[in-house]
Amino acid sequence: MTSNPIAIAIHGGAGAITRDSTSPEVERAAREELETALHAGHRILTAGGTSLDAVVAAVCVLEDAPRFNAGKGAVLTHDGTVEMEASVMDGGTLRAGAATLLSRVKNPVKLARLILEQSRHVMLSGAGAEALASTNGLELEDNPYFVTPRRIEQLERALAVHPTATELSESEGEAGSTGTVGAVALDGHGNLAAATSTGGMTNKLSGRIGDSPLIGAGTYADNRSAAVSTTGHGEMFLRVAAAHELCARIRHGGASLREAASAVIQEDLSRIGGHGGLIALGPTGEIVFELNAEGMYRGAIDASGKLTTAIFANDPAR
Amino acid sequence: MTSNPIAIAIHGGAGAITRDSTSPEVERAAREELETALHAGHRILTAGGTSLDAVVAAVCVLEDAPRFNAGKGAVLTHDGTVEMEASVMDGGTLRAGAATLLSRVKNPVKLARLILEQSRHVMLSGAGAEALASTNGLELEDNPYFVTPRRIEQLERALAVHPTATELSESEGEAGSTGTVGAVALDGHGNLAAATSTGGMTNKLSGRIGDSPLIGAGTYADNRSAAVSTTGHGEMFLRVAAAHELCARIRHGGASLREAASAVIQEDLSRIGGHGGLIALGPTGEIVFELNAEGMYRGAIDASGKLTTAIFANDPAR
Repeated sequence: MTSNPIAIAIHGGAGAITRDSTSPEVERAAREELETALHAGHRILTAGGTSLDAVVAAVCVLEDAPRFNAGKGAVLTHDGTVEMEASVMDGGTLRAGAATLLSRVKNPVKLARLILEQSRHVMLSGAGAEALASTNGLELEDNPYFVTPRRIEQLERALAVHPTATELSESEGEAGSTGTVGAVALDGHGNLAAATSTGGMTNKLSGRIGDSPLIGAGTYADNRSAAVSTTGHGEMFLRVAAAHELCARIRHGGASLREAASAVIQEDLSRIGGHGGLIALGPTGEIVFELNAEGMYRGAIDASGKLTTAIFANDPAR
Repeated sequence: MTSNPIAIAIHGGAGAITRDSTSPEVERAAREELETALHAGHRILTAGGTSLDAVVAAVCVLEDAPRFNAGKGAVLTHDGTVEMEASVMDGGTLRAGAATLLSRVKNPVKLARLILEQSRHVMLSGAGAEALASTNGLELEDNPYFVTPRRIEQLERALAVHPTATELSESEGEAGSTGTVGAVALDGHGNLAAATSTGGMTNKLSGRIGDSPLIGAGTYADNRSAAVSTTGHGEMFLRVAAAHELCARIRHGGASLREAASAVIQEDLSRIGGHGGLIALGPTGEIVFELNAEGMYRGAIDASGKLTTAIFANDPAR
């Protein structure tokens, strides 16, 4: 136990999430799931655990919730398969782990964590990564566990408009990518950590790798600046190295956390036509949510212990 | 044709390359190959072509040369297979393309370029990426084309010491990774571009993804700062987002190209125990080589038209 500040923030994806398209029941259920994830991470922090443990625990809750596009409920590729990916980073040591092209690992973020701790590599993929997961006792599931009726419908709608994968417009893919999940945390030892997990975008080409498993794009953590997890049109976040760019603006440009987050989303990302959002947490416990989309599932338990969740862009946190 | 400065720089990998271990014949042959690659890129620039075309042309020459760890002569995985990866980025538009887990594409950098221009995705992998290559007429080769006796010997030596892949030490892997290739160029239109291509590290786990195909780690280009290609122990470059970090130090920290390159290699990378090098080119045509390893195959044709090549750390460029 410690008197240093502890804090956690999470997201469940940014995109075309509007009040008109969201029933009160859906909103209530989504907020409850965000709260469950926040408590799962925060409980670890209050018990003196690490930020790495906290972000993994929070992301696991969201991976297990079919509403979000990660783990169970991941979106489907053009071929109707799931190809999940995740990454995690420790801001104290800059150690990182990432996994992509996963079709059987129940909680991709746990495999990213395992790679961080046990592999001489940072990023593994496909069968090789899943063999490591299996050897180390991580739960594997068959395809039916991951695939939900809602994702099948989404793919069918996408295929009706764009029967070949290469015809898919970027805006269509963007809408289909809503639901990536992520977490950032600060523990009582003063260490930041970040994690991100996703199924990618609906109707993506098999073999596509997005920003979520890329250290520097979807995830970055450095005790000298911030912990960051991003969500949105992955290709755009990748091109601006969004998560690392936010940290660099603080470390080299002297920006505040809020200034850096705003510049990455409203300037760097918007300049190339990208949409999405991010969560960022600084070494003093400051939390920032930034988005240029209609909505982003998000929430936090701040250094004072106050829990808030929000969904739409102009949602007052509550 | 134009009077704006044009320039190109290349590398053929950094690592344990010492004068003692390099015969005069090998040194001469390596310098000739570097010169051929430089001329291939520079010819395009002098004819008014783009920096993107120039870096792809230069990297293709090095991919085709068995000496270097990319394309023909790529190092072997723990399973004895080749798994190649490459990326390319346009500094004017921040458009990028990357491909990984390739076993059949003769010139991986050409596929990265194709993805940059034609795909709605930035990063593709494996069979999906190779299908795109095939559809678009890129040359495919079977395994024997890529595998050279020298790489088989290197893998056998690594396996003799470390019979299971997970036992491989990082230092061993590092030495085995020498030979990644890359290029940076500035064209007469004022545009920067960067490209990197590799076979990864000897005895790597199948499915391992390194820094070379990661935009921000192995490759980055932004007309506002620099074009960068890195080489060395990929996991370490990935953790510091090396290529993007260099650009960020210029753009946000006001560092010169030389200061930024030095800080990334001698501070950021060295701090976490990483070894390797990078090439960087600024929008005025300034060229910097930076390394903390015994040697790096490298060369340039600068804005005055002067061609130089070098190999060992303290080699005077000539």
